[in-house]
Amino acid sequence: MKIAVVGCGAVGSYYGAMLSRDGHDVHFLLRSDYEVVRRNGVSIRSPKGDFNARPRCARTPDEIGRSDVVLIALKTTANELFPKLLPPLVGPQTAVVTLQNGLGNEEQLARIFPAEQILGGLCFVCLNRISPGVIHHLAEGKIVLGEFQRWPEPRTHNIASALRHAGVVCKVTDNLARAHWEKLVWNIPFNGLGVAGTYLVPGEIPRCLTTDQLLGDARYESLVRELMLEVISIANKLGHDISSDLADAQIERTRTMGAYKASTLVDFERGLPLELDSLFLEPLRCAQHAGVPTLRLEQLCRVFQSLSVVRS
Amino acid sequence: MKIAVVGCGAVGSYYGAMLSRDGHDVHFLLRSDYEVVRRNGVSIRSPKGDFNARPRCARTPDEIGRSDVVLIALKTTANELFPKLLPPLVGPQTAVVTLQNGLGNEEQLARIFPAEQILGGLCFVCLNRISPGVIHHLAEGKIVLGEFQRWPEPRTHNIASALRHAGVVCKVTDNLARAHWEKLVWNIPFNGLGVAGTYLVPGEIPRCLTTDQLLGDARYESLVRELMLEVISIANKLGHDISSDLADAQIERTRTMGAYKASTLVDFERGLPLELDSLFLEPLRCAQHAGVPTLRLEQLCRVFQSLSVVRS
Repeated sequence: MKIAVVGCGAVGSYYGAMLSRDGHDVHFLLRSDYEVVRRNGVSIRSPKGDFNARPRCARTPDEIGRSDVVLIALKTTANELFPKLLPPLVGPQTAVVTLQNGLGNEEQLARIFPAEQILGGLCFVCLNRISPGVIHHLAEGKIVLGEFQRWPEPRTHNIASALRHAGVVCKVTDNLARAHWEKLVWNIPFNGLGVAGTYLVPGEIPRCLTTDQLLGDARYESLVRELMLEVISIANKLGHDISSDLADAQIERTRTMGAYKASTLVDFERGLPLELDSLFLEPLRCAQHAGVPTLRLEQLCRVFQSLSVVRS
Repeated sequence: MKIAVVGCGAVGSYYGAMLSRDGHDVHFLLRSDYEVVRRNGVSIRSPKGDFNARPRCARTPDEIGRSDVVLIALKTTANELFPKLLPPLVGPQTAVVTLQNGLGNEEQLARIFPAEQILGGLCFVCLNRISPGVIHHLAEGKIVLGEFQRWPEPRTHNIASALRHAGVVCKVTDNLARAHWEKLVWNIPFNGLGVAGTYLVPGEIPRCLTTDQLLGDARYESLVRELMLEVISIANKLGHDISSDLADAQIERTRTMGAYKASTLVDFERGLPLELDSLFLEPLRCAQHAGVPTLRLEQLCRVFQSLSVVRS
């Protein structure tokens, strides 16, 4: 299978390397890491075994050309590059798979390509890009794959099979929209409060908080739970029928993860742009459109907006 | 909730009576049973408790008018009545729910109403209409409810909640198309072979066969399994990812049902039209369109077509 990987940070590099190792014709679209990856390939350090993969490297999408599958793992803050990067990779049979965080990415792709070519893959994985071409895989790795706005097709299962054959745990979802909301039940509190949480608690010194710090303090734990229940209530207003039990289940699961840094926190510490739109603002817009009150999410978004002003 | 029931045989009467007993404003559209039901109501005899319900009775859809929900339980052989019976019941907010057997019913409704008003409810229930207005409920009763061509909406869950409150076990499916195929894995062999099975075994005397007779004879059991695997292979070619284990699971479940007569067998014995199109011919067309070989299903359809010629 000819696979183009667009956005070769930790996520794109990891899944691309797995597929390349399994014999697929994998092409990485690279900018700053081009020379290093072309010379050394991609090295994955993982508790499941280290390996080096040798994907083909390109600097422009035209060098890659039409592919069977395009895996998009750009930060969502770079989505304005879609019209520039993607069209040379996409023919009428190409599956365009966004592995990005949050809401709105499939919709942005659907402004460029027919809706029936678009899939979403939700990544449940702890990764760190240590240096160009070197990715540390810490834990998990599952992808939940679904079609944009419709039920699975034969090709959905074909892509899932290819991922599984390459060693990726992959589940096909019947309902990508609900899967997004279920993932947001975790991402909104832990990505959000990890960076902005101290601003919501009077008297706290501004700092970042890992998952264990959030759950080790009753004030933050209760914010985590309130946010989770708000996200569940938005999702349910939209028809997704998520049980409020998911909040406690997610909190207990997260306790087992130790001192984990959600991706927004990593980005914040590195001074990178934050994925505010897809992770927080688009869900808030959904809540407002559906008429669901979301006090905590609004507070979080206000803090992020003032932080952005300070940082930019 | 104002609910119109169109097709007040066993299925429509049973669910309509449950909803009427629970306080909904239920209207039955009746022809031959009008006088009896208006006088005596609907009597349900059930192992879960007998009861009598008093739905409102009408002879024409105009007497009922726009409803919140229209439950369609006509035999699929009467689907050509849709354009005559349904429009007076359906406004822009009406949910049109077909409880009918097999494939193609939602599509036929979608020629008259917007696709987003249409739902399908798959009924897993053993019922018998003993006489006008008298229904014998033998076992089960679950409805699997889903939206036509899309994921559940808030109203899907509202209708499911109303059904549950009325005492109906109701599950919302994310994927109505796959739920139809999963149900056909049972219906095609047991409804089909129950009437036409003896014609597929050389030397057998033509007769009807109950589920226990089909599973009590190795020749029929193997036809049951072959048909199940054919249906699963069609479904999987369409992307539904149904495990072949479902065949054995269905066979074992059916062994616990005793001497059950599938609805096609009941219709056949009573000399009523058979639901050939929705249960057998439409699935065969899907197989042919998808290029899936289905020897047994083709044989079954050929037998039914010659039986129809003989009977008509």
